[in-house]
Amino acid sequence: MKLKDIGEFGFIDRVSPLGLIRADGVVKGIGDDCAVVSLEGSDYLLVTTDLMVERVHFMIDWTSPEVLGAKALAVNLSDIAACGGRPRDAFISLAIPDHLDVEWLDGFYRGMSDLARQYRVNILGGDTTKSKSDLIINLAVTGLVGRDEILLRNTANVNDVIALTGPTGEAAAGCSILTNSPDLPDHIAQPLVRAHLSPRPHVKEGRFLAQSHACTAAIDVSDGLSSDLAHLCKDSNLAAIIYEQDIPVGDNLIEAAHMMGMDPLEWVLNGGEDYVLLTAIMPEMWSLVKEQAISNGFNIIQIGKFVQGRGIQLVGDSGRSEELEPKGWDHFK
Amino acid sequence: MKLKDIGEFGFIDRVSPLGLIRADGVVKGIGDDCAVVSLEGSDYLLVTTDLMVERVHFMIDWTSPEVLGAKALAVNLSDIAACGGRPRDAFISLAIPDHLDVEWLDGFYRGMSDLARQYRVNILGGDTTKSKSDLIINLAVTGLVGRDEILLRNTANVNDVIALTGPTGEAAAGCSILTNSPDLPDHIAQPLVRAHLSPRPHVKEGRFLAQSHACTAAIDVSDGLSSDLAHLCKDSNLAAIIYEQDIPVGDNLIEAAHMMGMDPLEWVLNGGEDYVLLTAIMPEMWSLVKEQAISNGFNIIQIGKFVQGRGIQLVGDSGRSEELEPKGWDHFK
Repeated sequence: MKLKDIGEFGFIDRVSPLGLIRADGVVKGIGDDCAVVSLEGSDYLLVTTDLMVERVHFMIDWTSPEVLGAKALAVNLSDIAACGGRPRDAFISLAIPDHLDVEWLDGFYRGMSDLARQYRVNILGGDTTKSKSDLIINLAVTGLVGRDEILLRNTANVNDVIALTGPTGEAAAGCSILTNSPDLPDHIAQPLVRAHLSPRPHVKEGRFLAQSHACTAAIDVSDGLSSDLAHLCKDSNLAAIIYEQDIPVGDNLIEAAHMMGMDPLEWVLNGGEDYVLLTAIMPEMWSLVKEQAISNGFNIIQIGKFVQGRGIQLVGDSGRSEELEPKGWDHFK
Repeated sequence: MKLKDIGEFGFIDRVSPLGLIRADGVVKGIGDDCAVVSLEGSDYLLVTTDLMVERVHFMIDWTSPEVLGAKALAVNLSDIAACGGRPRDAFISLAIPDHLDVEWLDGFYRGMSDLARQYRVNILGGDTTKSKSDLIINLAVTGLVGRDEILLRNTANVNDVIALTGPTGEAAAGCSILTNSPDLPDHIAQPLVRAHLSPRPHVKEGRFLAQSHACTAAIDVSDGLSSDLAHLCKDSNLAAIIYEQDIPVGDNLIEAAHMMGMDPLEWVLNGGEDYVLLTAIMPEMWSLVKEQAISNGFNIIQIGKFVQGRGIQLVGDSGRSEELEPKGWDHFK
């Protein structure tokens, strides 16, 4: 059997049962943004790991080493953010092909270290080895979160507000621009390319939501809005209704889609690598959360609500409703 | 500048200072078998990570998927053992090339999971992605160790006994047999090949030494005896004298070296991937430790002692002493 027959998530479902050997201390194993472990003390330990492979996740000539180093850390910090945590320490493994020189690697570490400093994260160790072909970057990152603050995927409730901490689709548009090199004005192309190359992990937003005690569930949008909303629905055993008119779509994305003959909604719903948070908020707390978010300097946008049932209904601008299939990223399909 | 100009350890020295952003809770950052972090509670948290790259660390047709899965975990457990710790949770990242099918991956997970069960370690998460060329395996493993039990590299003292928990060189001999396919009898070749493919992490030995309070420093022999002893010497600011006649060398290794026209001492001193522990033991406690080790079902072998100064003196069977250069594994040299 080939992996493409069962897909990335089919494969994960297949091997997950092999992993839980002793249950003590395991709050959450495979199947959330982080593993959540209960040790002594008042905090849970969070652990996440992300692998980036040259020619699969990035092209080396699309980006400076500084920007790539920062992104490798950012995508892990985003997982910590999705659990409401404070990131603590990072551990990097690199497999380095011959053609990369020390100056390139200095830049990579500098970029990673600069972002680490912004988030007060240590880079405490790792493994450095040779690669016969592609550059391989793996980071494992630990974090801490109060036991009453943890944000998981399987805890949303009926009638909870579905909200995003930022727009989706821009990273996918940026990736498409880098791949196809369309003739676009810089003021449209560059912010989209930047969204792909330099995502900002929503750690501040995650901490705010964790401390609000109004957020019942969260995930970071890495596979794509449709797929990540489907994860929240499936794990919380709920359905979702989202409204096309409420989904945030930036002007640059609309312009770029128009000029490239693309459907902007395809990027927005299925693009991935957005690293904004998709969250469930108690309906009676929504106004307060929205207001406090704005006074903390960031936005949170309602796009729909959770209801009984299964699947996702997308209500179009005309009022017509259709089933939204999760079509986000699957490495093997 | 190319990496081969500065070597793996030169590169690590170069980037390490960039990593420590906040010192609180960091007992040990880059430069030991594990990072050691002080959280709330009576234990330290240990974190280690190891990257294995196809055609660099393994050839896929040398081994079954089960055996490779077990080894990927074992080498990380060995790092936890070298710090005296109890391994807790593992996090695996895999980049999978197209040609590997689901049945192969099932075997890989089965092998890893069987070893995890022996050591009561969970496999709690990770990342699964595609690779355009080689199979990439990264594991991050956490462990716990009592604050008064931790074994580090920089804490050996003058006159401490230098001791090994098992023989070295066998994995290197096994690797050489797999590479060169010499005509050797199975009863000689197979145990050596097994030492390369299926190392046993010395977790039990590490726990015994940590609890003995007689062990002042430890490292696992992964780069090679000469290199790993040099790490202990440099970090503890000491020199070492070791005696050729006391270094354990198995009969199979001597036979294989003879039949392959190799120098057995080259494998023993510089081979690497042994995953036995190299330790410093208080001299007044040595007899007791040795005796208790044997009554616990394993061996510990004195090969020399730490002295004032720098470098390693190897005293040959003739009584002549020579400087031993660390010639173990460096990925870039």
